[in-house]
Amino acid sequence: MLSKSVFQNLIGLSLGLCVSFASSMAQAQNDPLPSWNDTVTKQAIVEFVEATTDETKQTFVAPEARIATFDQDGTLWVEHPMYSQVIYCLDRVPALVEAKPELKDVEPFKTVLTGDREAIAKLPMAELEKLLAATLSGMTVDEFQAEVGKWMASAKDPRWKRPYTALTYQPMQEFLGYLRANGFKTYIVTGGGQDFVRVYSQSTYGIPPEQVVGTAGGTTYGYAKDGKPALTKDPKLLLNDNNAGKPEGIHLMVGRRPLIAFGNSTGDKEMLEYTEAGDGPRLSALVLHDDADREYAYGPAKGLPDTKVGTFTQELYDEAMKNGWVVISMKDDWKRMFAD
Amino acid sequence: MLSKSVFQNLIGLSLGLCVSFASSMAQAQNDPLPSWNDTVTKQAIVEFVEATTDETKQTFVAPEARIATFDQDGTLWVEHPMYSQVIYCLDRVPALVEAKPELKDVEPFKTVLTGDREAIAKLPMAELEKLLAATLSGMTVDEFQAEVGKWMASAKDPRWKRPYTALTYQPMQEFLGYLRANGFKTYIVTGGGQDFVRVYSQSTYGIPPEQVVGTAGGTTYGYAKDGKPALTKDPKLLLNDNNAGKPEGIHLMVGRRPLIAFGNSTGDKEMLEYTEAGDGPRLSALVLHDDADREYAYGPAKGLPDTKVGTFTQELYDEAMKNGWVVISMKDDWKRMFAD
Repeated sequence: MLSKSVFQNLIGLSLGLCVSFASSMAQAQNDPLPSWNDTVTKQAIVEFVEATTDETKQTFVAPEARIATFDQDGTLWVEHPMYSQVIYCLDRVPALVEAKPELKDVEPFKTVLTGDREAIAKLPMAELEKLLAATLSGMTVDEFQAEVGKWMASAKDPRWKRPYTALTYQPMQEFLGYLRANGFKTYIVTGGGQDFVRVYSQSTYGIPPEQVVGTAGGTTYGYAKDGKPALTKDPKLLLNDNNAGKPEGIHLMVGRRPLIAFGNSTGDKEMLEYTEAGDGPRLSALVLHDDADREYAYGPAKGLPDTKVGTFTQELYDEAMKNGWVVISMKDDWKRMFAD
Repeated sequence: MLSKSVFQNLIGLSLGLCVSFASSMAQAQNDPLPSWNDTVTKQAIVEFVEATTDETKQTFVAPEARIATFDQDGTLWVEHPMYSQVIYCLDRVPALVEAKPELKDVEPFKTVLTGDREAIAKLPMAELEKLLAATLSGMTVDEFQAEVGKWMASAKDPRWKRPYTALTYQPMQEFLGYLRANGFKTYIVTGGGQDFVRVYSQSTYGIPPEQVVGTAGGTTYGYAKDGKPALTKDPKLLLNDNNAGKPEGIHLMVGRRPLIAFGNSTGDKEMLEYTEAGDGPRLSALVLHDDADREYAYGPAKGLPDTKVGTFTQELYDEAMKNGWVVISMKDDWKRMFAD
């Protein structure tokens, strides 16, 4: 027969084990960022959110000032080898030429119709701008939304054979949700087209159209074919939401300085600088694409390959280190890339 | 001795009276619009909110699409005899001339410095634009916010001797709160300066800066005197948020068509038309200033005096009647004008 004390110890031990098991279960269940490895990066972003939402701390920030801005391409979803919006524009060309056959022999439409991606990639910027203007304007905003929605539902990324909207980074999706659960208002601040991203932002990221700031053209109020008042997209550029255009766009559309800003390229530099220049605690972070196996590897920061899309220079990396910005290594900090 | 049945009847009656008294008390307490008279106007707006928020009804609208846009000047607060933002610009001139004495003898500053309101009112539009550009740009957005905040805290309306922010219409304040309590997102869509209105929109209307769409100039990202990144207001006009500019501005800043739109002048016509052109139920309304005693009376609709500020033409009135827009008579529909 076991002595009473041994028996009690066993009971105590198993109770203790149960409690500790339950507690680690609860911890795993409560971990708002399960797709992040337990690195200093995860620790830094969680600590920032805790520091700014705990009323007992000096670093507390009122809910209305909890503005978090995220670049989209390369920060929230895959941007390689080509921005999905550019692919959309290329895909629109056949329909455009069908409606206006005289474009068939005119550049850049002629080259795009050959389907030769290398030749398309070599088109001069002025020709590309013609292409964007032709495919992104001249229709009502309702027609445009319907077109983009239809395309997004059927187009697929050639590498993963999945819709582009399925190629959002799961760790970032968790972070967006974690922020919203903590009273933050999450915004997309993209160099991409504002009207384009607004079509799928709610269903893809839980971010409503009014919280998307992007490169924006003008519209003209008038009457559609059915005689109803309508807004027609025109090619006039109102906001080039890249580089200095990002803080300028945030001021125009939000009117507050962000508390948190995430990006991944030199086009996000000014947004991060502007964010950091505010009083009190701020969190700025850059996603470094250093995972060629699970996604892509490009820089040229840290000796990674230099590519045209999403350039992250060594100079930007050095500025990040100097300023204490978080650099997220996709390879080391993320447990997985996409939702299953 | 009372018969049992009489006794029971008396008990029943007094219980009934109590119930009915309590119920009418509750009704009064629960009335979300106590400053509105019980007219068809109040009935129409309450019925619209009930129809679009009751899940059992075919007219139900999902919370995310409940966008309500309000003109400010003349719709949410007093605009006569002069827009408060114009008064702000005039009030800024002495400080401006002190900083740049060479302006002293230059128009329009010379005339403004005389303080002669009649002469000021006669300044040509081109001169007025110079004045607006000089007083609304050339400083960082932080400096501008501080200046406007200081002015708003001290400036007073000459007729009521109260701050401008105390001259918001109490019935509209109640309506804004009623909408928000029913899941609507309330926006100001003003011909006034976006940066100007954003300074006080939260404290005055409970509307955060990101829900203010207004006439907007550009900003330029750079470095302030202290070396910190900053945005400087420049005189370039990005959005003239009047007339057709209102639906264009709503598309740019919100990206959704409103479900509800309120205005008071011809500058709001296109916003109301655009709102009504959407599918399903929509509520459009115009405030008619027909109460010279408690506020001001101007039109020229319905034979009211024709004034320069906040013009409500007979043509707009006829369009409202034809389209079934609600016309709010300040005199008949509002129990009181301002909060006590």
